[in-house]
Amino acid sequence: MTSIDAGSAYARLEARFARINALAEAEGMLHWDLATMMPKGGAGSRADQLAVLRAVGHGLLTAPEMGDLLARADAEIPDAGEDGLWRQGNLREMRRLWRHATALSEDHVEALSRAVSACEATWRDARADSDFAAVAPKLEAVLALVRETAAAKADALGLSPYDALLDEYEPDGRADEIDRVFADLGAFLPGFLEDVLERQRREPPVIVPQGPFPIDRQRALGVTLMERLGFDFDHGRLDVSLHPFCGGTPDDVRITTRYDESDFTSALMGVLHETGHALYERGLPERWRRQPVGQARGMSLHESQSLLVEMQVCRSRPFLGFATPLLREAFEGQGPAWEADNLYRLYTRVEPGFIRVDADEVTYPAHVILRYRLERAMVAGDLAVVDLPAAWNDGHEKLLGITPPDDRRGCLQDIHWYDGAWGYFPTYTLGAMTAAQLFAAAGEADPAIEPGIGRGDFTALLAWLRSHVHGKGSLLSSAELLRQATGRPLDAEVFKGHLRRRYLS
Amino acid sequence: MTSIDAGSAYARLEARFARINALAEAEGMLHWDLATMMPKGGAGSRADQLAVLRAVGHGLLTAPEMGDLLARADAEIPDAGEDGLWRQGNLREMRRLWRHATALSEDHVEALSRAVSACEATWRDARADSDFAAVAPKLEAVLALVRETAAAKADALGLSPYDALLDEYEPDGRADEIDRVFADLGAFLPGFLEDVLERQRREPPVIVPQGPFPIDRQRALGVTLMERLGFDFDHGRLDVSLHPFCGGTPDDVRITTRYDESDFTSALMGVLHETGHALYERGLPERWRRQPVGQARGMSLHESQSLLVEMQVCRSRPFLGFATPLLREAFEGQGPAWEADNLYRLYTRVEPGFIRVDADEVTYPAHVILRYRLERAMVAGDLAVVDLPAAWNDGHEKLLGITPPDDRRGCLQDIHWYDGAWGYFPTYTLGAMTAAQLFAAAGEADPAIEPGIGRGDFTALLAWLRSHVHGKGSLLSSAELLRQATGRPLDAEVFKGHLRRRYLS
Repeated sequence: MTSIDAGSAYARLEARFARINALAEAEGMLHWDLATMMPKGGAGSRADQLAVLRAVGHGLLTAPEMGDLLARADAEIPDAGEDGLWRQGNLREMRRLWRHATALSEDHVEALSRAVSACEATWRDARADSDFAAVAPKLEAVLALVRETAAAKADALGLSPYDALLDEYEPDGRADEIDRVFADLGAFLPGFLEDVLERQRREPPVIVPQGPFPIDRQRALGVTLMERLGFDFDHGRLDVSLHPFCGGTPDDVRITTRYDESDFTSALMGVLHETGHALYERGLPERWRRQPVGQARGMSLHESQSLLVEMQVCRSRPFLGFATPLLREAFEGQGPAWEADNLYRLYTRVEPGFIRVDADEVTYPAHVILRYRLERAMVAGDLAVVDLPAAWNDGHEKLLGITPPDDRRGCLQDIHWYDGAWGYFPTYTLGAMTAAQLFAAAGEADPAIEPGIGRGDFTALLAWLRSHVHGKGSLLSSAELLRQATGRPLDAEVFKGHLRRRYLS
Repeated sequence: MTSIDAGSAYARLEARFARINALAEAEGMLHWDLATMMPKGGAGSRADQLAVLRAVGHGLLTAPEMGDLLARADAEIPDAGEDGLWRQGNLREMRRLWRHATALSEDHVEALSRAVSACEATWRDARADSDFAAVAPKLEAVLALVRETAAAKADALGLSPYDALLDEYEPDGRADEIDRVFADLGAFLPGFLEDVLERQRREPPVIVPQGPFPIDRQRALGVTLMERLGFDFDHGRLDVSLHPFCGGTPDDVRITTRYDESDFTSALMGVLHETGHALYERGLPERWRRQPVGQARGMSLHESQSLLVEMQVCRSRPFLGFATPLLREAFEGQGPAWEADNLYRLYTRVEPGFIRVDADEVTYPAHVILRYRLERAMVAGDLAVVDLPAAWNDGHEKLLGITPPDDRRGCLQDIHWYDGAWGYFPTYTLGAMTAAQLFAAAGEADPAIEPGIGRGDFTALLAWLRSHVHGKGSLLSSAELLRQATGRPLDAEVFKGHLRRRYLS
């Protein structure tokens, strides 16, 4: 390994970012605790702890000497060699984080934080009451500040305003590129959906297994499948929270789910989905654990890993062939509801609906494309908040063939915009497309992968993911990683091919 | 409330200590997680997180501007009024923390930290092998650095070297005072122990209830009794760890225990002991939550609260009268082993032994007095590490009438010295004496307290403790708090009277 002088600007940056990383890890752990363990009376002091950890980390990142250190470090890193490459990538990521952190004034950050808190609180009631007008003024205030954020970050990063927002969730992501693949997919989906529904009507009806399904058995089954997929319980946990998530750190990955005694299906797929996230975190490069270049690369790649496991692997017929005996055993299931073919139809049932988080694999992208188009228009100033409900319903009708009966099931359903997360939505479907493309490439690269799934042997798949995706950390952009791993840029054709095979053949 | 200018030195100190407190709380929570939840593979990254939180907190406390802020703040606080008193106390505690933190050079702190890590690791093997010689050189290295610590802190605090060490655990504690009460107790115990053992021989033998005692029932019983004692599960949890402790924060107090299916007695009293600690934390003054003056006052007062609950309340005959039906119900107990008189004799059985943590209420102080005398001599340079085993065994024989057969059951048994905790031991017995004195005063002040215990009603007791102990935070020294609450200084007579009543009458 090329050595770097301990007193150099680059070495000082590494030491500083290791500290920033430890604070972020502490914050992540306390978030996990908040969602899984904390009694409700701990909320006030926990909010203080999290705010201080964030503020201290932000202070380290934006300290006056940082600009100078970042400027001087470039010249210290040799161009050549594996280590040089990673260090260059590390410095690039340091600079990206620093630019994001310094692009906004403290006053602006505080104003946005306040506007978001107020809006999100109002949104909870407005959603319950299906009363968009009640939250519209607060959403307008948030949007105005988000547009300022976009303009300031656009200046700092040299990007368009929407791309500057997107960059926080999807580094180097570009709306032009998303427009290209979403146009393809958006044109394909309505007709495809009709074909799928038509075909579904000709199939035998799905028999829904009847519970109760005891929670301890659901959990034990989840643990069994997690271990089969490669989750290491010496480096992670499975717990319960209201909203399932993957948290913790790469050495201690904590996923959560929630159980329903009358229905095992959603908790089980939820666990497998989070397991995909967890395997990614766990597979990040050990050597760069504490540095920006060692972190997961953006939300679309993260979502690709959860969807690869859930959608590509675990909702497949071969996987359900392997899993069905385990399900039968876990729940003492008997009869036609517990046949692998029936469970496969259950897990691939398609039904257009109003709620994104309940959507199946075929209709989900339509929900996302709708949101993406609307948020781009709002950030650009082409769509006013007051006109959002009509635009939403119109777009929903065009993409999914049904119109939400109220705003609760329309533009009030998701927390994202009300909580200040603009530029996030497209990563869900970019992730689904990336998952399909990576999984297809993996299967081509190693013929052992597909047959392994039917036997519950995922070692070959995990090995391919470790070396082509997880182990890359943030060394490459998502686009470049995908190109290197699959031989081509993101291509809607691959995802469409997957959908056709699964739902029409 | 008197207002303080937001830009004043005092206000800036409060803001800074609120931040230091939040970091310390985060550290406490991550320690709790480490002991209760963390998979073993998380140890490395957790060590980083904790080290960074400590370093950042230390940096805030020792920043160059602190000395000036502390000097200027005095003049800003009005002398009069409740608020003025608390702010003066707060400033005094800030100064105490700052003096401790700045008394030692970074180099010394690091050298001590390294010596302690090496010594503690060696001690684990040495204890298992009962091989004092194996760890003696490393203990010598630790002691040498501890003596330097004592000398440096003695200078900074204007105390004797041992008092300077003691001050970290027991602010304003003084060895002179400890000598006085320990001399009294040390003279009393050997003869008293003989009398107790003589009397015990004349009593009916204790019948030990036979298990198994399912862990979920032990836990449920613990929860029931915790709630009766006033533990609020909206502000706390009960979990499992190898070494029981009370952690978390005043708004989210987390206690732990460990269960043994074949014996419910120690886990149950362990839970009640930690509940005493937890009630103290929870009762600390809300208004001063984030400030030094709002923290618990020293280890002896903390231990007094756990021992008041465990020893004064829960091992009493009235409490066991109340609890026996609950125990019977929990474990389906029948017959003479499950009579309240038998359980009382079980919970007050006295037996001299070699191991401090297994000791009963009567012999425990002898273990502590032994350690206190030895550590004072070592810190003073009057006892060499190489002579420790002989001095230990000699003292043990004199105080308890038996000689440890090996060093594993002698001077190797406790982690404290090997882990750098010098000046800590006396607080255990100061706590036991303080507990007896506070409990006696509470009973005199409110005649409802003692009869309440027999009915499982602890509200009057908790109210007295809230107003005379918990709610005082760190406003007073332990000695002054005790004087105000009980009308006199710490007095071995009260503790001796308690022992006589319980074990001889």
